Amino acid sequence: MPNGFSFALLGADGAARLGEFRTPHGVVQTPAFMPVGTQGSVKAMRHRDLEEAGAQIILGNTYHLYLRPGDPLIGRRGGLHRFIGWPHPILTDSGGYQVFSLADRRKITEDGADFRSHLDGSPHLLTPEAAVDIQARLGSDIAMVLDECLAYPASRDEAAHSMERSVRWAARCRTRLMEIRDGSASDVGATNPGQAQFGIVQGGVFQDLRDQSAGAAIDIGFEGYAIGGLSVGEPIDLMYAVVADTARRLPEGQPRYLMGAGTPADLVECVARGIDMFDCVLPTRNARNGQLFTSEGRINIKNARYAEDDGPVDPACHCYTCRTHSRAYLRHLYMAGEMTAGALNTLHNLSFYLDTMQRIRDAISFRTFDRFRQEFLRSASRLSLDS
Amino acid sequence: MPNGFSFALLGADGAARLGEFRTPHGVVQTPAFMPVGTQGSVKAMRHRDLEEAGAQIILGNTYHLYLRPGDPLIGRRGGLHRFIGWPHPILTDSGGYQVFSLADRRKITEDGADFRSHLDGSPHLLTPEAAVDIQARLGSDIAMVLDECLAYPASRDEAAHSMERSVRWAARCRTRLMEIRDGSASDVGATNPGQAQFGIVQGGVFQDLRDQSAGAAIDIGFEGYAIGGLSVGEPIDLMYAVVADTARRLPEGQPRYLMGAGTPADLVECVARGIDMFDCVLPTRNARNGQLFTSEGRINIKNARYAEDDGPVDPACHCYTCRTHSRAYLRHLYMAGEMTAGALNTLHNLSFYLDTMQRIRDAISFRTFDRFRQEFLRSASRLSLDS
Repeated sequence: MPNGFSFALLGADGAARLGEFRTPHGVVQTPAFMPVGTQGSVKAMRHRDLEEAGAQIILGNTYHLYLRPGDPLIGRRGGLHRFIGWPHPILTDSGGYQVFSLADRRKITEDGADFRSHLDGSPHLLTPEAAVDIQARLGSDIAMVLDECLAYPASRDEAAHSMERSVRWAARCRTRLMEIRDGSASDVGATNPGQAQFGIVQGGVFQDLRDQSAGAAIDIGFEGYAIGGLSVGEPIDLMYAVVADTARRLPEGQPRYLMGAGTPADLVECVARGIDMFDCVLPTRNARNGQLFTSEGRINIKNARYAEDDGPVDPACHCYTCRTHSRAYLRHLYMAGEMTAGALNTLHNLSFYLDTMQRIRDAISFRTFDRFRQEFLRSASRLSLDS
Repeated sequence: MPNGFSFALLGADGAARLGEFRTPHGVVQTPAFMPVGTQGSVKAMRHRDLEEAGAQIILGNTYHLYLRPGDPLIGRRGGLHRFIGWPHPILTDSGGYQVFSLADRRKITEDGADFRSHLDGSPHLLTPEAAVDIQARLGSDIAMVLDECLAYPASRDEAAHSMERSVRWAARCRTRLMEIRDGSASDVGATNPGQAQFGIVQGGVFQDLRDQSAGAAIDIGFEGYAIGGLSVGEPIDLMYAVVADTARRLPEGQPRYLMGAGTPADLVECVARGIDMFDCVLPTRNARNGQLFTSEGRINIKNARYAEDDGPVDPACHCYTCRTHSRAYLRHLYMAGEMTAGALNTLHNLSFYLDTMQRIRDAISFRTFDRFRQEFLRSASRLSLDS
């Protein structure tokens, strides 16, 4: 374990786990949801809104921060925490996912990913070592290894070759981090000596490849393990099955992070399968599009039925939006194109997600998780109340 | 005086006045600045941000609210305060200014203003009586009479004819309000029985017309008086002179409102000439464009010189933005197109405006207003620190 990061398993209820991890910027209770702060800001939120909603950790996107304002600038300003004024834990991804999304603007080789910036077309090379160095300068509390992101569907051969490359990249990432830790790469300008590094399990929907990938990651040795390459279009039952089988392969004493998921139901279902950490743009992006998550299902605030509805978005919610404003007003703000609509909606959706995580933790603690799960799936996970 | 509205003059320092007015939704200390909440929302601000910045009253634009979501809907929801969830005082304009801005989409007759909606091209007729009825349904604490807004420059004849029409319209507005108050127009659906009504002095830059307009308004009798048709392109010294001479003509025991002004220097200079109330989009609109007001002058946060500036926007400011974030981060958010940039910048600019009003009130109270004014004009009113 490096200085600064540790994980403690505090309880369990079936496969669901209650825990906490410590970082140089504070403690995070798990299961945890991490709001996505793409460019060093969770869209439409101020930091104090995040604190109020109950966020203990946020995610920063290395690809975006690398391109603008640049990791050297952020490093000179003392790292990402200091630059953005967020004193709590931060996890950064490796930048790989965004680079792979660039489609015809990138080319993958064994060395890394050649790509052209979506901002100005400038050429860049993202190697495993570069992904480590960039994140070291950003100084996040948890850095992710660079992995190859497989599209769905993929053949078993494609999945195997991709997974094997990801294993080789993961080893290079770990080697590079060790050089930074032992001082032999001091020119990198790392800003957080307590930074942890998580490995990522790939292998598509092929469980033997997933097992092989998990084993290789564990052999390399990381402070935590993520499951990548899911929530990319595969059937939901298949995703849940891969999550369950893969989580089972990971060390009990370290955190397990399901990348890029998901819906409220996904959070509950994957906690039930042993996951500790989540991130997703769903609550923030959907808020800006007028879709709100409630304890009784999703609503689209632009629906005409809310034009004269004096009630709050969710009577069970205690967030500022629900305490202060009616559905009628929120609909008006949305229809009128006011940016405050995005702010109020995002505050609600993130409050709903983070409240859900708190209720999950409480339920595991009281060993009532299965009852909570059944009730939750009957109400909050309904897709829409509008039709 | 109607039930619900009263003004008290609490002190003076030269022509500068300290006072307060009471409304059905609370007290406002004057001199006061009213943030503009065009569509029932001060752009990029949540209500609690406004309260924190020190806003005691906000302005709603009747034209926008009439078109969307419509005054009948707002009336059914109990009025504008209840609809938007703002429990403090609200002033509404008459809608005239926006209608006159429609240029070739409107036609003015003695009856009122025929116009087509900027949203969908639908035809509408805004008469003096309609402007009163709409604002009665909105239920603002202070309603404005419908006046004709004169473009600058205008000939003396044009200014005279326009002013005379405004006087006739003002009389019709007052008559209509009296019908609402005495119950003979109960079908209007007024939502605030304590609503006050302000007259508006017009007359362009011709002081004899201004005097005539002020006299006519006083003869009709309103709860307060506004000076309209300034800050429309005339030289600043001319504006200040008209303000001084017109304010002098208005009753000492009633509030005086300079519509649509202004810069920080305008606020101080016009308080010095006897003005009690202001509104302007400058702090909010400029914030969204990256221009920030500080105690040492304006800055454009997009300027490259701020890219690595760890200091706050304004070291003398105590707002959340200045307490939490650096110029470097605010510049990054602006350049990255994050909507949080608008929110943080607006919170700062409004805090600066409202702090300035508090400092003005303190200075009048301590009879040090002239010293404050000289110091303020030497520092905060500088146009730019960037060049």
